[in-house]
Amino acid sequence: MPEINAIKGPTGAIVMPEGFQAGAAYCGLKEDITSLDMGIIFSTSMCEAAAVFTKNKIAAAPIKFSQKIINRGNANAIVINSGNANACTGEKGNKDAEDMAKITADLLNINYQNVIVASTGIIGHPMEMDKVRSGIEMAAKDLGSDIPNGSNIANAIKTTDKFIKEAAVKVNNGDLSFTIGGIAKGSGMISPDMATMLCFITTDAKISREYLNSCLQISTNRSFNRITVDGHTSTNDMVAILANGASMQCKQISSEKDIQVFQNALDYVTLTLAKKIIEDGEGATKFIQIDVLEAESQDDADKIARAVANSPLVKTAINGEDYNWGRIVSAAGYSGAQIDENRLRLFINKILIYSKGTPVPELINNDETFHVMLQNEMQKKEITISLQLGLGAESSTMWTCDFSHEYITINAEYHT
Amino acid sequence: MPEINAIKGPTGAIVMPEGFQAGAAYCGLKEDITSLDMGIIFSTSMCEAAAVFTKNKIAAAPIKFSQKIINRGNANAIVINSGNANACTGEKGNKDAEDMAKITADLLNINYQNVIVASTGIIGHPMEMDKVRSGIEMAAKDLGSDIPNGSNIANAIKTTDKFIKEAAVKVNNGDLSFTIGGIAKGSGMISPDMATMLCFITTDAKISREYLNSCLQISTNRSFNRITVDGHTSTNDMVAILANGASMQCKQISSEKDIQVFQNALDYVTLTLAKKIIEDGEGATKFIQIDVLEAESQDDADKIARAVANSPLVKTAINGEDYNWGRIVSAAGYSGAQIDENRLRLFINKILIYSKGTPVPELINNDETFHVMLQNEMQKKEITISLQLGLGAESSTMWTCDFSHEYITINAEYHT
Repeated sequence: MPEINAIKGPTGAIVMPEGFQAGAAYCGLKEDITSLDMGIIFSTSMCEAAAVFTKNKIAAAPIKFSQKIINRGNANAIVINSGNANACTGEKGNKDAEDMAKITADLLNINYQNVIVASTGIIGHPMEMDKVRSGIEMAAKDLGSDIPNGSNIANAIKTTDKFIKEAAVKVNNGDLSFTIGGIAKGSGMISPDMATMLCFITTDAKISREYLNSCLQISTNRSFNRITVDGHTSTNDMVAILANGASMQCKQISSEKDIQVFQNALDYVTLTLAKKIIEDGEGATKFIQIDVLEAESQDDADKIARAVANSPLVKTAINGEDYNWGRIVSAAGYSGAQIDENRLRLFINKILIYSKGTPVPELINNDETFHVMLQNEMQKKEITISLQLGLGAESSTMWTCDFSHEYITINAEYHT
Repeated sequence: MPEINAIKGPTGAIVMPEGFQAGAAYCGLKEDITSLDMGIIFSTSMCEAAAVFTKNKIAAAPIKFSQKIINRGNANAIVINSGNANACTGEKGNKDAEDMAKITADLLNINYQNVIVASTGIIGHPMEMDKVRSGIEMAAKDLGSDIPNGSNIANAIKTTDKFIKEAAVKVNNGDLSFTIGGIAKGSGMISPDMATMLCFITTDAKISREYLNSCLQISTNRSFNRITVDGHTSTNDMVAILANGASMQCKQISSEKDIQVFQNALDYVTLTLAKKIIEDGEGATKFIQIDVLEAESQDDADKIARAVANSPLVKTAINGEDYNWGRIVSAAGYSGAQIDENRLRLFINKILIYSKGTPVPELINNDETFHVMLQNEMQKKEITISLQLGLGAESSTMWTCDFSHEYITINAEYHT
């Protein structure tokens, strides 16, 4: 396998691949004038483009517009605003999304049908297009490839996020050398009035649209589709990737082996960003990994992982640092997946606590040492729940966070 | 239609039908010595029996035992304890459930294969059978048909419930006169470490097992299957009904018209009890009804109602008394059901707030009078959310409560 180097620290990830620029600006869509709320990602050369969109039937205008762009397959700019999601905005919303592409295209001297549009923020409010226009103009003037260009646009797409989310990776292997950089936003998975999860990825690898698309689908299923804060899918979710082939040391990626290298590198970027979204989950105090092992089918493994990850009772128990195995096994039990309680084993941070239909003897006998050991584990920030089903060879992993008083505060006290 | 009289007030509902007795006792399964924790429901004559059980694959021992009893079809006693759910208790648990039936049967001089067993309380702890035996003995001695007998057993099945849940109905119509009485418990829908929702119903109507069973299935689908506090299905859920045919003024119920009368009366009892469970939902401050109308299919209507009812974001918004239409329509959007946002209309307490893809003009224009009117509605204890899809003729209703700080407190601070 060639060397894959994860780039650490604030990197301006999105402009690390060759030939990409980014620009950001404040135009008044957010109330806080110290915030950025408009951004452009631009490649001077045309890119292969692929994207994954929300499955919510109530999709925002920029989602509908960008789906058409992606169906054509090429793009070399993405324009993104925060502060207003342009969702539930009717016909005006559709026109506004298209106009955002046209304004951007005019400034960059490209075709508007090569511009992906994304919006995030409150829903049901018409876009203030005067502000949007000036924001796009300022962001276009700001375009550049320096680290601050990359980190500024990571800031510009934030809404309730507490920190920016960047990830980048370099593959160095002679004629298979390329870089992938990505940024993401999201802190409820998903808070639809502050819609939503967005992720943008750039790469200078030489890869066809077909391979790019299939790698992105796989990567998304391994990362963003495996995280949940509150199980609420937003109207604006989008993961988009642009590949401009600008790396001089990158041959065309087409052999199975080379595709695997690209896939691994892309997986690193998407998974790193997905985990950062969970770390930044609304009110989160814990990072929870749920591993389901030895399931009869992949579908069963996924169902159990998702049921446990979405259970408010499991999430409140972990918030309270309680090793509440009953809530976990019963969530698995109602998931709809095949389970045999006489084979099921449950581990928390690798400690076996439930086996074959009952809690372990130490729990039944109220063993104080065991109790203290478990309590210490529960006080850690990272909790791994493993369910070993003993029924087959399939597995699944989900990541989530706990449910805290702060989650209620954020979401009950937020007013429309 | 014959007269159906709902009986109001504390009624000792479960002993209102002819020929039923109840007894309750405290035997130390609960810590609070002022609580009751054991109960028996008994009919001196044999009954037709029907029941609905949890679909959780991790089912408690009494569930497995009682399923066998119900498959045989006759029973004339139910023994119920609170304080310990006898779930995740392995082979000993199975034997303990059977022994509860045997102890009860010996005392009542009946066959143990006519005794339904139910348990509720903490899971994963072996039953203390010495206490259980003495509890059953005391409850058997306490058997009687007075109002306190009925209300005491409603108390004995409580765990975290704040109040007892009783409902009774009398049908008076010459030779079609009978009574149905029911009790229920549950305050998380379902908190599996305090497993769970139980409901027991008695009737002196003359009805065959087949009709009794089909009426109970229908009634359950219209009531207990339409409520959710946290979407977590427990290991111990059970709804059981005994019909002893002891009413002297009741002909055999077999015509379609008579079955409909029985169904209506049973529906009243189960729906009243189901709504009381929601009122008593953990940390609940609001009673929320979700009506989905004009759906293409029943399945679509159910999916949408359930998605909205289970959305933590909808439930926290209502807790915060915010008319957050965005969270509601986006929950409908991700439910998996067919939706056309251009036809969708959303009402809160009959006020139209979203129509055909956008919020109503009053919201877009920040109309202060409209805002105040909506705020006043949101301050009410009962909130009705209506989603009119404009796609067909199918409908569905769900009931739920809000998500509050107290829910987090109850479930995060509870310790295993």
